[in-house]
Parts: sequence; C-alpha cells; structure tokens
Amino acid sequence: MTEKTHIVWHDHVVKRARGCVLWFTGLSGSGKSTVANCVDQKLFDLGAPSFVLDGDNIRHGLNASVEILTGENSEAYAQRFGLGFSPDDRRENIRRIGSVGELFCAAGMLTLTAFVSPYREDRNRVRQYIESHGAVGDFVEVFVDTPLEICEQRDPKGLYQKARAGEIKGFTGIDAPYEPPREAEIVLAGGSKPIEALAEQVVEYLKQSGKLRVG
Amino acid sequence: MTEKTHIVWHDHVVKRARGCVLWFTGLSGSGKSTVANCVDQKLFDLGAPSFVLDGDNIRHGLNASVEILTGENSEAYAQRFGLGFSPDDRRENIRRIGSVGELFCAAGMLTLTAFVSPYREDRNRVRQYIESHGAVGDFVEVFVDTPLEICEQRDPKGLYQKARAGEIKGFTGIDAPYEPPREAEIVLAGGSKPIEALAEQVVEYLKQSGKLRVG
Repeated sequence: MTEKTHIVWHDHVVKRARGCVLWFTGLSGSGKSTVANCVDQKLFDLGAPSFVLDGDNIRHGLNASVEILTGENSEAYAQRFGLGFSPDDRRENIRRIGSVGELFCAAGMLTLTAFVSPYREDRNRVRQYIESHGAVGDFVEVFVDTPLEICEQRDPKGLYQKARAGEIKGFTGIDAPYEPPREAEIVLAGGSKPIEALAEQVVEYLKQSGKLRVG
Repeated sequence: MTEKTHIVWHDHVVKRARGCVLWFTGLSGSGKSTVANCVDQKLFDLGAPSFVLDGDNIRHGLNASVEILTGENSEAYAQRFGLGFSPDDRRENIRRIGSVGELFCAAGMLTLTAFVSPYREDRNRVRQYIESHGAVGDFVEVFVDTPLEICEQRDPKGLYQKARAGEIKGFTGIDAPYEPPREAEIVLAGGSKPIEALAEQVVEYLKQSGKLRVG
C-alpha cells in the first residue's frame, strides 16, 4: 500500500483561451433577452461557443425564490437562500450570476447574460471580478437603452401595469431606481432599431475586439 | 412611437445538443479533482467542449464562505449567503453546483464536477434536476472509490491530520458520514490504478454512451 500512495498528485489544469461575458442591462421590456438570444443564434450559426443566462434558466434553478425552494427544503433553508427583490437579494442575485458568468468565460464561452441589474455598483463588482480572473475586455457591458415609455407600452409580461397599480412594489423604473451605465462598451438603441440590427451590432463588436474567432 | 412598439417580441432560443454532467464523488484525497482535470485535458485534446467545476473555482466565487463575503458586504449579507459546512450549507453548496452543472450541460459542455458531496440524497436531487431538464444519461455519477486509509495517508492538504487532532469538526470519513453511491455509472478504483488509467476509463464511457462526439 505504501507504494500506491507514492503516486505524485499533480493537479494539472487545462490552459484554454478565455471567452467573455456580454452583460446586457436595461429596463424590463427593453429587449435584453430577445437581443441576447438573437446574438446567441448568430454565434451558434458561426460555430462559436456561446450561451445565454437569463431569467428563464436562472430564476427557477440557481437563484430560485423562497417559494420554489420551500418545496423540497425546510422553511429555514428556503428563507435563508431563496432570493426575492430586496437590495441584498438583488445583490446576491447579481453576484451569483457574475460568478457563473466567470466560469463560462473561463470555459471559453461567449457568455450572454440578460438581467435588469439596475445598480451600477453591482455591475461594476461583476466587471472587477471577471477582469481580475482574466483581463480587461473579458467583461463587455451592453446597455439596452430603450426609453421607459416604450418598455411600458410593450409590457410583455404585464408587469408595468401591475407596478402602476401598486400590485408590485419596488419595480425598476417605476418605484425603484435604474442606474444606467456610464461607460458601457456597447449601447443599443432598443427603441428604434429592429432586433436583427441590434444583434448584428453586438456580433460586429465581438469580431472587432478579437473575441469572435471562427474557423 | 406606436409603430415601434409593434415589433413582434419573440424569444427564440437556440436548440443545441446537450452535454452531460460527470459528477465525481468520493472522500477528500480520493483523487476526484486530479482525475477530473486529467479527463478534461484528454477531452480538450480531442477537441470536445469540456470544463471542470471544483473547489478551486467554486469555493472562492459562487459558493464563497462567510469570511470571503464579509470583505465587501454587510455582516448580515455574509452570514446569510456565505456557505460553511453545516448540513444546510452543504445542501445548498451541492444545489448551486448542480444548477450550474445543468447550465453547462444545456450549453453542450461535457461538465466535470469534483466535490466530496457525501450525501446520497443531495446527489440524487442533482441527478433528478438535470435529467428532468434533459434526459436520462445527462447525469453520470462517478464514484472515486479510494479506501479511507489511502486518502488519509495521502492527506494532500493535511486535513485528515487536523480532523484526527480535533481541529476540524464534521470532517467526512472521520466524524461525518460519507454515503457511497449505490448505482454509480462509473466506479473508479482510486487506490490501485494510475490517474491516467482512471481518466481513460471515463473517456471510454463517454465514447460508448455517445456523449463524446469528436470531429
């Protein structure tokens, strides 16, 4: 047995090129998720490794609510780890997504995240976290700059209507702040251009920044 | 402005082939991370998309401890979300990793996770979560079956020594249970074969199960 334990334990880690995180931010209804998914399709068609993180695959899993976690966990567990919309909950929501974005980036993926992420400080913390694991350029802030009036008219999930009626409290843009980015790498005119054109603008950025390497 | 709001908002989601999650489980020092990283290198060399999630990239980020989170957050925040080693904390640790594993799987990656994950229920919950989003076969349990005596002799981080001295409480295999898998898809004889052979066994499984498609 002594011999077996003399195996040298050396944790070799694969050296792979990093991807990046395209961090879409903007009001509810601004088009973040729609544009991100359109970019994802274009990258997929180009043969580039990409993936979208958004409410659809995060809010029921990694960042599940108290209600969802209550099902198969104790009440104390669900209350502690389940995420709502308080400032601390929003902060943790973004922190976890940023951490996962970094993992995808380290895996070489062109990673698209689509979350309101209303606080500048939270977004900047993610930027620092990701850049500190790699380099400047790994975090690309994409501001989907769609005017509130348009978002509210679209109101795809009926949330603005509920917020105006007071049925939802702390809704970004209505009774909670949205802090627009000051130096976003990409600004998309979400109210005045078709999805296709906005997505193309992002793909073009990736090509010019050298992050899109296709065979 | 009315016209602009008539854009059809259709969230098209890319249809891509799923990867899988190779869930390495076993005692501290059993070789989980070392073998997973060796498999990762082999897959990388074969041109297959793969990635390792282990303590090195999870414990300081996504599942950071109270101590780490205290740095730039309130005490209440760090206490609530920081993870330690209580049963609830271990449960949440595994739940988050399982959720991230599912995201990588959905992104088409051959995902290797390397965590002690001592509780059968927690592992089975991850299996159900991942399979329910895809299909049976997406979760592959890899039991690194290295005898405790060998793990303790290796003791790469000096943890067994501390646990025996009572400096660490609740250490798996010493004063906390390890529940071995009952029906792991892959069992690796971690105490008696070289790393290279164990890694090859995993790659062979991927080839035979059709999860490894290389050009």
